[in-house]
Amino acid sequence: MSIQDKAVVIVGAGIAGLKAASRLYECGVKSCVVLEARNRIGGRLHTVEGYQGRKYDLGASWHHDTLRNNLFLEEAQLPPSENGPRFVFDDDQAILIDQDRGRVDMDPEMNLEILEEELSSYTDHEFHQKLGVADCSFYEMVMRYLFERRQFLTDDQIQYLPQVARFLELWHGVDWTILSAKDTYFGHIGRNAMVLNYDSVVARIASSFPSDWIKLTTEVHSIKRDGKVFVSTRNGEQFRCDHVIITIPQSVLSLSLKEGEPKELGRIAFEPPLRMPITKAFEKMHYGCLGKVIFEFEECQWSKERSRITTLANSNRDFVRKLRTINDFPQLLESLNEADRGKEQLEPWDHPHVFINLAKVTGVPSLVMLIQEPLTQFIETLGDKNIVFKFFESVLNKVMLTLGSGPVVNGMDKEIISTAGSPILRNIIVTNWSREPYSLGAYTACHPGDDPIDMVTALTAGQDDRIRFAGEHTIMDGAGCAYGAWESGKREADYVLANTSI
Amino acid sequence: MSIQDKAVVIVGAGIAGLKAASRLYECGVKSCVVLEARNRIGGRLHTVEGYQGRKYDLGASWHHDTLRNNLFLEEAQLPPSENGPRFVFDDDQAILIDQDRGRVDMDPEMNLEILEEELSSYTDHEFHQKLGVADCSFYEMVMRYLFERRQFLTDDQIQYLPQVARFLELWHGVDWTILSAKDTYFGHIGRNAMVLNYDSVVARIASSFPSDWIKLTTEVHSIKRDGKVFVSTRNGEQFRCDHVIITIPQSVLSLSLKEGEPKELGRIAFEPPLRMPITKAFEKMHYGCLGKVIFEFEECQWSKERSRITTLANSNRDFVRKLRTINDFPQLLESLNEADRGKEQLEPWDHPHVFINLAKVTGVPSLVMLIQEPLTQFIETLGDKNIVFKFFESVLNKVMLTLGSGPVVNGMDKEIISTAGSPILRNIIVTNWSREPYSLGAYTACHPGDDPIDMVTALTAGQDDRIRFAGEHTIMDGAGCAYGAWESGKREADYVLANTSI
Repeated sequence: MSIQDKAVVIVGAGIAGLKAASRLYECGVKSCVVLEARNRIGGRLHTVEGYQGRKYDLGASWHHDTLRNNLFLEEAQLPPSENGPRFVFDDDQAILIDQDRGRVDMDPEMNLEILEEELSSYTDHEFHQKLGVADCSFYEMVMRYLFERRQFLTDDQIQYLPQVARFLELWHGVDWTILSAKDTYFGHIGRNAMVLNYDSVVARIASSFPSDWIKLTTEVHSIKRDGKVFVSTRNGEQFRCDHVIITIPQSVLSLSLKEGEPKELGRIAFEPPLRMPITKAFEKMHYGCLGKVIFEFEECQWSKERSRITTLANSNRDFVRKLRTINDFPQLLESLNEADRGKEQLEPWDHPHVFINLAKVTGVPSLVMLIQEPLTQFIETLGDKNIVFKFFESVLNKVMLTLGSGPVVNGMDKEIISTAGSPILRNIIVTNWSREPYSLGAYTACHPGDDPIDMVTALTAGQDDRIRFAGEHTIMDGAGCAYGAWESGKREADYVLANTSI
Repeated sequence: MSIQDKAVVIVGAGIAGLKAASRLYECGVKSCVVLEARNRIGGRLHTVEGYQGRKYDLGASWHHDTLRNNLFLEEAQLPPSENGPRFVFDDDQAILIDQDRGRVDMDPEMNLEILEEELSSYTDHEFHQKLGVADCSFYEMVMRYLFERRQFLTDDQIQYLPQVARFLELWHGVDWTILSAKDTYFGHIGRNAMVLNYDSVVARIASSFPSDWIKLTTEVHSIKRDGKVFVSTRNGEQFRCDHVIITIPQSVLSLSLKEGEPKELGRIAFEPPLRMPITKAFEKMHYGCLGKVIFEFEECQWSKERSRITTLANSNRDFVRKLRTINDFPQLLESLNEADRGKEQLEPWDHPHVFINLAKVTGVPSLVMLIQEPLTQFIETLGDKNIVFKFFESVLNKVMLTLGSGPVVNGMDKEIISTAGSPILRNIIVTNWSREPYSLGAYTACHPGDDPIDMVTALTAGQDDRIRFAGEHTIMDGAGCAYGAWESGKREADYVLANTSI
């Protein structure tokens, strides 16, 4: 096949790639192609249909930081859509549920929400008011706080606070033992707005440039710099271009650290190889795996009062006893670790879960459960919906009970018409990000000792003046978010425009 | 009277002065005097007794910022006291009460607490993410937020959010129209602990140096620098010293800006006058007036569930209509101001109030109400307890009703023994800070355009190497707090120790 000449080749039709293309077209670029390995656009913005045509976003679901989120502000200024509102502000005070104790939110004796704020201040103080404090896991930071402040905490507070604080695992998509304490707390710049749904955002951006720019199921195989840039695809196409903007996820880009002919799906061979600051940056940045399990019911038979429900991982008094009696911190950590050893399999009450009560947010009788690494990988492997249900049944029933409903009746493969006060489960949708070769997880996450600045600095500098990067992993403001990816696409389009003569 | 020679003269026996004396004695200084204008020590730490000997702090009441508050940490390490706990953590989620609507806290439709966080982010973002944004009143900042974000707010949110946000008036001690927006939000470094009571803290510090160092009812009249420092008192005593540490409140110190022979109580004539950076600093720093009204009841007949109750100032739908329909911000402000014009007298529902429910915190059946400038000055002038009760009766009854009690029965001058479900009011204690010549208000406050850094910088530099300053107005970490004053006393003692040969 002959070489095709393009001004710009964009790798990946996620929101970063689409925004880059849109911006280039808006500014007069006539020759561009967007190469997408999947058979759909949107990347980790992925809207699917479930029971009775209900729509869900399996990837990003919110406009975060709505005070400074320009994508949100752009959406908010669009004329009304005939499909109803484009987003809904859904933050509220979470219901917190412990398996044994029941609701522990807004408890006037424990005041766990207030302690959680103190823990946040403590963590901030450790890293930002003192110099040279080494990073550790969020788990260890919480233990350090409890240990140092135990004199000022009741037994109940010592038992439940750490489990409450773990809701942050669902912001980062990873378990607290592998989450950087330095990175755990971050400021939200305004409320979050749930997007209804991201497919309309993706379609709007994609419709702002010629549709024949996009080539689906076209996986890039190598990128060579030889004067111009040569991009070749797995199915044998070749492009010669002035600039390439690479928007593949950090997880997939990390495959390019290996040398040799790519065998894995998604891996791009760079020639010359990725430069040192980029390859080094992967040592200080990781990738997490936020997953979702969506429980679809026939109708809503539970309380619509709150949109957020967090179930806490199990805890016990033995933990409190150790916290109170062991006076050496390393020894305490060792003793706590011992208690966890010997556990081989993940269990449903090992992790906190966040449920989004769509019945309140949109009126749809479904619960969207967020799960974290390593649970996500485990659940995404199970396959059978009934096995997934069995795994989470006790958690789900505890939520339903707390929300004033009866236990869930599995009506996925059975013709159950009605039950007395029990919601009938019709379908379960589970994400597949960890097994999907073009995502390999969800989004960037900081492990203890990580620092996102190296990655962002290296990738915004680019491989060189022609080989550029965009995506949620290449930007600080909006890192890990759709709007960050979108801004980064605009950034790279503007870079290209400033460095080219159209 | 002959001149008395001292190594150090300390002006003021508040916590800054006492701590300075304590530190000097600890480090070997043998010759020191603490001159106190009042007939008691403690300054704005003032514990009084009320009905049946109940104890209250009329000034500072809490250990703030307990994660970094060294005074708190010192107290926490003392052996147990036979008088019970030295402090109690009393933060909890405030009950928010509107006169018409009743409780608006934790309302799952309005989510005012979440909006309040957004407003905080918005304010922070205005000043810290943009450059050169001029300060304005907190009132104007709230209006700006509502105006810019009205598209994303419901009518109820527009009506009630501003009134909820005003609880911050009770942190600063001033009405939102005279409060600096830049200074309104600040980070709390850990929970607050109510002190039981500050008299024991004051007594402990005062007992750590010779009691004959303290001279009560000894008001300083002039401070002259002539080689050494000459301190003369209103009752004719004269001291010659190497160093003087002046710990009088900023409000009283500001009297020294005038020249000539002092006639006002508290004013000190400096010779030479206070240097320019100090006098200039008063242009960028003000003084507020947090007051307290303590309602003492025979017994608790209301809910002990929560320790914080905030009553909101009244609001109405006309405000919402203006916010929605006026599209020019200056015009909106003008229109809102018009509505307020013509009001001559303060009314009970003009301001938010914070009530501390002592029944929950310590078991004492009293409510401590916090009030702000200019209401404090007004209330502190009323004098008669029955007039104060009449003024606040509707607010107090709304609180009682919301807490499940009947309306208050005034039993202050009557022999009422019992009522069906109605708490019997036995006494009201009102602070007097605004009228007290040695305090002239409560503590430092930032008006729009103020910046505390000039004052802190000028006063920590001192008048010169011998004339030094301490107090809550002379320090950044702990500004306006007892522990800040305490730290500043230690700081100046250490300065003196480093610059003298004992």
